[in-house]
Amino acid sequence: MKSLSSLEQMIEALRRLPGVGPKSATRMAYHLLQHDREGAQMIGQAMINGLNMIHNCGSCNTFTENTLCDTCQDSERDTSLLCVVESPSDQLMIEQTMTYKGLYFVLMGRLSPLDGVGPQDIHLDKLIRRATDGVVKEVVLATNFNNEGEATAHYISETLKVRGLHVSRLARGVPVGGELEYVDPGTIARAMLDRRNT
Amino acid sequence: MKSLSSLEQMIEALRRLPGVGPKSATRMAYHLLQHDREGAQMIGQAMINGLNMIHNCGSCNTFTENTLCDTCQDSERDTSLLCVVESPSDQLMIEQTMTYKGLYFVLMGRLSPLDGVGPQDIHLDKLIRRATDGVVKEVVLATNFNNEGEATAHYISETLKVRGLHVSRLARGVPVGGELEYVDPGTIARAMLDRRNT
Repeated sequence: MKSLSSLEQMIEALRRLPGVGPKSATRMAYHLLQHDREGAQMIGQAMINGLNMIHNCGSCNTFTENTLCDTCQDSERDTSLLCVVESPSDQLMIEQTMTYKGLYFVLMGRLSPLDGVGPQDIHLDKLIRRATDGVVKEVVLATNFNNEGEATAHYISETLKVRGLHVSRLARGVPVGGELEYVDPGTIARAMLDRRNT
Repeated sequence: MKSLSSLEQMIEALRRLPGVGPKSATRMAYHLLQHDREGAQMIGQAMINGLNMIHNCGSCNTFTENTLCDTCQDSERDTSLLCVVESPSDQLMIEQTMTYKGLYFVLMGRLSPLDGVGPQDIHLDKLIRRATDGVVKEVVLATNFNNEGEATAHYISETLKVRGLHVSRLARGVPVGGELEYVDPGTIARAMLDRRNT
């Protein structure tokens, strides 16, 4: 196998994918070469093309092929609202609810000191510039409700509140359709503390 | 997200990898674009380069960048022995045992009628031509010992024996270091039937 440098290069390259170790990478390379050379061609071209075309939106930081993404260019949006999410997938989920008409800021990550992810890795400077443009009145924190997401929300909240912004967070509570018997106690406790008048 | 055709192309391309669904492909694309653009570059170049350089060895069918692979070009090999394996990984395992000095034929798969993998997909014609070249005296079947591997070995054995070749199979039995109490009954039964004189 010594001379197969091209094959070894393929396997080494595939190992750069998250969650892919040496065994998986080898299986993937063999599969592509033996059964799906067209797929390998697609992957190769999509990578090169994507790197050339895709960068971060100058305003909201999501992936786009233009200077500003479609959402940021949409003149029907409420520019006084800015929703902070961890990823483009999260933004898409919120869009699908049809309940939010403001703009977004995509962190492309979350604070995670144990993994070496600090404030500079989630583009906090860019978020501060964006949120303090004088137009944004309220920042809605929609990071995930796990430990890292909560810590990220707390950190951003503290950073923006001292700059005079109104900062809110998605409500926590019993999920729609949830039966109390099967909901975890932490969620019920939170829903009790955050109970609202009817 | 409508205009992000380059990003969608990346995600669609990554889905061609075995074991990668839409969620994983999306996560991989985001990771590469945000945290490892060099990795995306490596993958793109390795794919394009691999497709250009790598093809099947004319003799043993494994992956190589030359007409014949290193093993087939090795003049120290015993050309009367031909070992049939399912994949290059299996060949590597046998090489590491240092117990075999013959040549190989790599099927690049196994018979699996339920998955639509028939004799033409495991290059049986090429194997028959290779095995009946007049030099090969014995074919050692080293396919896996699961259902598909056993069926493949049986099918190849029947096909080659009618052509007058001596066909053998790797021995089955208790693994080295195995304790009878923890070995499955099927293996012990096989080891009892195949017991040999000491």
